[in-house]
Amino acid sequence: MPNETEREKEGLLEKNVSRRDILKSAGIGGIGVLIGASGLGGVMAAADKLDTLKARGKSELTIPFYGKHQAGIATQKQDHLYFAALDVTTKSRQELKELFQEWTAAAADMTAGALIGKPQENGYIPPADTGEAAGLEQARLTITFGVGPTLFNKAGTDRFGLGGRQPKELKKLPVFQLDALDEAWSEGDLCIQVCSDDAQVNFHAVRNLVRIARGKAVLRWGQEGFQGKGRPKADRETPRNLFGFKDETVNLSMDRAKEFNENVWVQSGDGPAWMTGGSYLVVRKIQMHIEVWDRTTLNDQEGTFGRHRATGAPLGKKDEFAPLSLDRQDAAGTPVIPQTAHVRLAHGEGAEKLLRRSYSYSNGMSVNTGTFDAGLLFMCYQRKPSRQFIPVQKRLAKSDKLNEYITHRGSAIFACLPGAHKGSWIGEALFR
Amino acid sequence: MPNETEREKEGLLEKNVSRRDILKSAGIGGIGVLIGASGLGGVMAAADKLDTLKARGKSELTIPFYGKHQAGIATQKQDHLYFAALDVTTKSRQELKELFQEWTAAAADMTAGALIGKPQENGYIPPADTGEAAGLEQARLTITFGVGPTLFNKAGTDRFGLGGRQPKELKKLPVFQLDALDEAWSEGDLCIQVCSDDAQVNFHAVRNLVRIARGKAVLRWGQEGFQGKGRPKADRETPRNLFGFKDETVNLSMDRAKEFNENVWVQSGDGPAWMTGGSYLVVRKIQMHIEVWDRTTLNDQEGTFGRHRATGAPLGKKDEFAPLSLDRQDAAGTPVIPQTAHVRLAHGEGAEKLLRRSYSYSNGMSVNTGTFDAGLLFMCYQRKPSRQFIPVQKRLAKSDKLNEYITHRGSAIFACLPGAHKGSWIGEALFR
Repeated sequence: MPNETEREKEGLLEKNVSRRDILKSAGIGGIGVLIGASGLGGVMAAADKLDTLKARGKSELTIPFYGKHQAGIATQKQDHLYFAALDVTTKSRQELKELFQEWTAAAADMTAGALIGKPQENGYIPPADTGEAAGLEQARLTITFGVGPTLFNKAGTDRFGLGGRQPKELKKLPVFQLDALDEAWSEGDLCIQVCSDDAQVNFHAVRNLVRIARGKAVLRWGQEGFQGKGRPKADRETPRNLFGFKDETVNLSMDRAKEFNENVWVQSGDGPAWMTGGSYLVVRKIQMHIEVWDRTTLNDQEGTFGRHRATGAPLGKKDEFAPLSLDRQDAAGTPVIPQTAHVRLAHGEGAEKLLRRSYSYSNGMSVNTGTFDAGLLFMCYQRKPSRQFIPVQKRLAKSDKLNEYITHRGSAIFACLPGAHKGSWIGEALFR
Repeated sequence: MPNETEREKEGLLEKNVSRRDILKSAGIGGIGVLIGASGLGGVMAAADKLDTLKARGKSELTIPFYGKHQAGIATQKQDHLYFAALDVTTKSRQELKELFQEWTAAAADMTAGALIGKPQENGYIPPADTGEAAGLEQARLTITFGVGPTLFNKAGTDRFGLGGRQPKELKKLPVFQLDALDEAWSEGDLCIQVCSDDAQVNFHAVRNLVRIARGKAVLRWGQEGFQGKGRPKADRETPRNLFGFKDETVNLSMDRAKEFNENVWVQSGDGPAWMTGGSYLVVRKIQMHIEVWDRTTLNDQEGTFGRHRATGAPLGKKDEFAPLSLDRQDAAGTPVIPQTAHVRLAHGEGAEKLLRRSYSYSNGMSVNTGTFDAGLLFMCYQRKPSRQFIPVQKRLAKSDKLNEYITHRGSAIFACLPGAHKGSWIGEALFR
């Protein structure tokens, strides 16, 4: 076994997890018992677990940037999000291309835990990296880039000679019933989804990417998000939204890889070749009327979602992952899951499958109303929005009981590009 | 050895540590070696360490709520902040008193990792707890309450018969040179500082305390904050602010308990008895002009702070904690640390010592300017603002080079009450 110094050098042990997780996942809690029961063999088994744990340390902090698909989509959701939409200001196709090249290099550096560019000795220029992430772990940082419909065509203008390459699926979302959209939280020529387990690492990434874009693109809107602090996957509960309910119980999962791949990734033949291996991202800024919700009875809350709050189980069931049984009725013939329950309308006929990857947001107090400015930055990935998000949202917009407690304030769609291999760059196929 | 419950009672083990530290401090890295070297005895020694570790696990997540002083002041800074200022709407002294009693009970529950009130079976009323922290660890949650000058006297009115009890030190801060204060980020009758390592745990706490206050007080303003994800104290680097510089290098520390106690806690005889054991909190919302800073050369950045960016050391020194040597000059007779450097003006004659406990904030993009809406929620605790924060800020406001890159947008002062013992409540002495 390498000694401790060597191990540190190898950076094997650089992960920040709660003490409880280590004790649990490493089986440390049972070490005394193991010794009693099976002597040295038991101890060695425990040591083996520790080795596994150790080896996981480094790789769990780093999500590879390069690959067939961009990271941050199939990636297990991190605790913090910074989503940024940008508008392109340059008129030069060449400069736009260079922006993607520079972004790719910077994102590869940052997701590997390095500062951007080379360490700087020259005091007479601004530093290449803004420095606030120095000394921090990369914390599973992923950076995912996308392009919006307006990059291809804005008010009838083909700005960069890309008009012929715009996928049919990449068009401004319809305005749904009850939408109360604000331009300040909608659309964008480009998007950057930054996720990690450290809010400061996220800020650093967005800030430096926006800085690199200077003269070529500017921030259009941005929103930070969070989920309850993550635990290892094995004993992770489904995170709760700000209404206190488990959210994303029904979700595409890499545990069912075929279904995941077919519903998330754009396939060859789906449209222009440059999007093969990419995925369409729909973003909806959904304000949650916290104070109204908090005056609602538990029964009404549960009837609204169609699930029990404590367990997340469908109404009338005990287990979170139990099937919905939408036809079930009580003795009086009333559906156990109400006709207007969120879960019933989201499910529909079960045809649409989305990769949901949402984050709660909280922006202090809304100055206009004196209420919490909080809600959900709903984010979902899919192969074909026209057959996935759009039909689901049409049903929800029409009759979802939850609409009494939420307002859709922002809307955007982006084509998240396929991944890049080392030596290539994100978006290369689009500009080829 | 005391058992786990006793240890927790003593609050001996309140630290959040990384996997690396556990492995280190538990000697897990050496477990194989121990078995080889000394057989079962060695293993038992390791197991003992693991038991200690296990016992520490639970208590490290919990910062005791009750005590001589409120938690969240001397507490090692957590990774996330939610600061809320409230205005009292009730005219009843009795209701105000009851608010503090209800807040105390709820805060004691939440900081212990429990939901507020009893588990609820009755579906015909709103749940006592809003639920979004269910299943999350308490993550070193602290909740700290304070009262502002306007609670005692607002526009000449003694609202709750407390006018005679207003401390001299608790008065609206002077308007400093260059202040560009916005009422939307200033003042407040009451404040709640919520800190933990989990942004969702923080949101839950503020939301539920504001909910409990319904009919008695309303949110006036709120701001979330963060620091780079914490590491154990032993190898913790000083966190960096959003200008990329280490911040709070010079700070009061419990490692020097006498100096800490004398400068942070209000002492008997300082003023009204109800504040003995409390501390005055100054909050300044400081916007940082990120884009301007990022166009500044490294030399100018370092000259502005008076420190090296990489190490945090004073200019001309190698070590972050080296003394400032303000008199030092270069060969040409120019001071090594410029006359207008932040560190020089903050230091002054070295008379004022503050407990700084600030957090970075990021609110997406400023709609008016298209720039990052980000900065520092500067927070400091002290015994006498008139002799601590105010003289420091007067110097800084006058000539700090950093003023070219920042704007003070919000300002508030609060008397953070002394702690409460179990059975008592925060603020009891004030209303007695």
